[in-house]
Amino acid sequence: MTTRNWQQVAAEKRLQQERAIITISNILTPEETEPDIKAQSIVKKVTDIDDVVTLTGPSMPIGRQTGKSTHFTEVLFHEAIDQAKNLDKYLAENGKPIGPLHGIPMTLKDQFNTKGHDTTLGYTGRAFKPVSEDAVLVQMLRKLGAIIYAKTNLPQSIMARGSGARQNPLWGLTCHPKNERYTPGGSTGGEASLLCLKGSILGWGTDLGGSIRMPAHMTGLYGLKPSSARLPYFGIPVSTEGQEHVPSSVGPLARSLCSVYAAVRELILSQPWTKDSRCAPIPWRADVYEGMQARKLTIGVLMDDGVVRPHPPVARVMHEALTKLANAGHELVPWTPDLHAECIEVMDLFYTVDGGKDIRRDVLAGGEPFIPHVENLVNRGKAISVYEYWQLNRRKASLQQAYLEKWNAIRSPTTGHPVDVLLMPVMPHSSVPHRACRWVGYTKVWNLLDYSAVALPGGKVESCDCEESWGHVARNEMDEWNVKLWEDNKTEMAGMNLTVGLQLVGRKLEEEKVLGVAKVLDDLLWK
Amino acid sequence: MTTRNWQQVAAEKRLQQERAIITISNILTPEETEPDIKAQSIVKKVTDIDDVVTLTGPSMPIGRQTGKSTHFTEVLFHEAIDQAKNLDKYLAENGKPIGPLHGIPMTLKDQFNTKGHDTTLGYTGRAFKPVSEDAVLVQMLRKLGAIIYAKTNLPQSIMARGSGARQNPLWGLTCHPKNERYTPGGSTGGEASLLCLKGSILGWGTDLGGSIRMPAHMTGLYGLKPSSARLPYFGIPVSTEGQEHVPSSVGPLARSLCSVYAAVRELILSQPWTKDSRCAPIPWRADVYEGMQARKLTIGVLMDDGVVRPHPPVARVMHEALTKLANAGHELVPWTPDLHAECIEVMDLFYTVDGGKDIRRDVLAGGEPFIPHVENLVNRGKAISVYEYWQLNRRKASLQQAYLEKWNAIRSPTTGHPVDVLLMPVMPHSSVPHRACRWVGYTKVWNLLDYSAVALPGGKVESCDCEESWGHVARNEMDEWNVKLWEDNKTEMAGMNLTVGLQLVGRKLEEEKVLGVAKVLDDLLWK
Repeated sequence: MTTRNWQQVAAEKRLQQERAIITISNILTPEETEPDIKAQSIVKKVTDIDDVVTLTGPSMPIGRQTGKSTHFTEVLFHEAIDQAKNLDKYLAENGKPIGPLHGIPMTLKDQFNTKGHDTTLGYTGRAFKPVSEDAVLVQMLRKLGAIIYAKTNLPQSIMARGSGARQNPLWGLTCHPKNERYTPGGSTGGEASLLCLKGSILGWGTDLGGSIRMPAHMTGLYGLKPSSARLPYFGIPVSTEGQEHVPSSVGPLARSLCSVYAAVRELILSQPWTKDSRCAPIPWRADVYEGMQARKLTIGVLMDDGVVRPHPPVARVMHEALTKLANAGHELVPWTPDLHAECIEVMDLFYTVDGGKDIRRDVLAGGEPFIPHVENLVNRGKAISVYEYWQLNRRKASLQQAYLEKWNAIRSPTTGHPVDVLLMPVMPHSSVPHRACRWVGYTKVWNLLDYSAVALPGGKVESCDCEESWGHVARNEMDEWNVKLWEDNKTEMAGMNLTVGLQLVGRKLEEEKVLGVAKVLDDLLWK
Repeated sequence: MTTRNWQQVAAEKRLQQERAIITISNILTPEETEPDIKAQSIVKKVTDIDDVVTLTGPSMPIGRQTGKSTHFTEVLFHEAIDQAKNLDKYLAENGKPIGPLHGIPMTLKDQFNTKGHDTTLGYTGRAFKPVSEDAVLVQMLRKLGAIIYAKTNLPQSIMARGSGARQNPLWGLTCHPKNERYTPGGSTGGEASLLCLKGSILGWGTDLGGSIRMPAHMTGLYGLKPSSARLPYFGIPVSTEGQEHVPSSVGPLARSLCSVYAAVRELILSQPWTKDSRCAPIPWRADVYEGMQARKLTIGVLMDDGVVRPHPPVARVMHEALTKLANAGHELVPWTPDLHAECIEVMDLFYTVDGGKDIRRDVLAGGEPFIPHVENLVNRGKAISVYEYWQLNRRKASLQQAYLEKWNAIRSPTTGHPVDVLLMPVMPHSSVPHRACRWVGYTKVWNLLDYSAVALPGGKVESCDCEESWGHVARNEMDEWNVKLWEDNKTEMAGMNLTVGLQLVGRKLEEEKVLGVAKVLDDLLWK
């Protein structure tokens, strides 16, 4: 048993990190530590990954690791450089890359087991307990040639998705790259900030209620939340582990859609179901992906979930996307938020079925203070019995079936086709000040249903959004909070040109479909 | 609220059944009630279904419905005949069948919702509560042209798989067609007995621990237990509904492999994932099915699970199958029961996580007595907390991953190939006297792992099996019970020529694979 208190543990952990960074700075040549240098000798540009690859990337995050914001947790620079040298050697000896992701530097939310390093989940009590084996996903990435060089920050318990303030006692707060007072979103916020700063090529996160899509939206990234059985999760510890009622999904975030696409495709081509018992044996369906780009699409449109109305820039960005889609000949079909309220109700009931025991245990194990948002969560509901829990599962199963029937029933009035995917906001607002996120209803519905979804950049908050009065009359307390959020911050938000994402939603295990439609929309918006 | 006691409810239910049978006897011509008459005017022989199809089949079960044994529960003869007439009309008008299962009479375990009829699960308290909608599976079968004409018996709570004695207070006991003192196995025992008597062409059951495979084995049938996400389960109430730790699977039983194959293939070709939110979008993989028949196979062989040693006839039937496979050039690789004990331990812990509350509620709702086996189950363990339940899920997930790694690790010493499927017994014994089943370890391991498995007839208990002394020294109490079971009953068992099945096991969602290998083995054994 350690006798150190949580502050000592956190201090030692930070010291460990600093040492790892300094050591690596010493072994890099001065040229390699220049932020703009491309270390071609170490890592390679690879087809399908459009970002310029640079392992000196670490030097940039080092520079940014100052001030109040923390992106990194575990630092793997040393082994990353060793791995890169081995890859160089392989390439020189064999005249070909070791795999399709040869030399691509990647980062991981501090939730993925990486041999020899901690997996803290933002808990002090999990510090200095290095794991003995890579997560299956990490094994697969390495085999494909990727280089894992750092892990990134996340909130205590991973659950404080919206709220970023004092994210965890171990590493502190992750801020939005554009403004320290703003949140990058959670829970994959460390990853999103780092990617936004070009400190990583591709980052891996998890999504149990929007934790990939929300940070992507808030920092201008692309992010895929697959259905839970598509990508390997074994060796990725999670808060409330063992709960199977709404399984968390693993997925990538990146600054380009083709990075996301390439990483997912290569993983699925490697047959994750032969390596992880949770994965379904569904091969990469190139025909579906290509098919979405070869015909006129039928797209369901949800502008407003009926609870919290999106801020003017979110609505405008949606409208601009719809105009471009319509002009390109795609059909837009109105979608309704029917069943969403029930889905959210069941999701919220699930959050507290164990009475907060799992999270409380982890927090107490480290002797650390609760983040207020987490404390509220664990104290919100009493534990229920297993029998009652099963009744909640039954409600969930009924909702899943009802939503399937809803999807089958909504048809294009002209062609009679069901919709291919839905287009909707990711959140009712852009990035907001820390602690100001409250409504994740636009994302978490799809976790309860275990649908596939992608977030992609749609536009930005602009000064034109502030010119006219919004004039929206709040429908409820949550909506009122959201109206106030806009009125209080709109000038600042517009001044920062905060990003606004869009969300494309497919049915269960339709990753190729949402990625294919995302390609169509992304090309319309940005090419 | 009804004031009738359970005996009155059961009596009324039986009267209702009798009336339904008598009514139909009156509308059939004398010729149609002859057991051997083929009612070609009503139902058609269809490609891929090799049994001769007869809707007068019901007259046979009527005859057999005497004595102590109950196969039927709900009787749908009237609407079945109406449906058959409509199909005839369709055929006459259109010159083609309505679907690939046009006119095939099928039966359902009394667990599948069938509009206008009860779904009792063997509970008196669920009698006289007709459901308003067909299960998704039933809707799909009807759309393919199948005719549902009866539902069949199952044990109280569906859980008393092995034990058949006084199966439920509502309908009583289902016996083995060859001997009233013997069990057809459970829980799909009503279906198995009916099929064995040629009272149905194809029956649908569910399998949560062996409930399709065990009755198939005991009555000489073919039965498929798919992985739980392959065939639609919506509208099929189940005991401990809402539990998702070990999902029950729905699957067919029949007297021929090609009946099982055809029914499953046609269902999957109808895309169950577009109709049931639980199903994974995995199309019918004809290439995998054909592939198994086009090359030499690598087959893992488990003769004995190390806990309960199979009776001599089971071992002999296994050896005969192995000889035929080896002679045909297939490679046999020894398999070990490693991890099976842990899987069974976790399965057993799951059975009582709610402290028996779900079953107790249903039993009390009808005011009926507990079947002793069920009473033991509900009183065996105290309810655990949701948090503890999650820890059990974690153990399960670890075992699922460990078994996947085991499967990857065991290779053919000559070719290095991993095994295609496993061949092993279904149970350590053939059909046995009522109440004598105790060990379902050979089947339930695959439910915890959610693997695909098929049971097929391998041979029979023969007098040669009794000639020599077994000479097996019992390893434990369970094994000792099994030795005694053989010694006490072997002469009778051999005299009845009881059937012995074989089990082929594939990994998760490998239904085409196990069906393809079953075709190879079935041809070697019986053609």
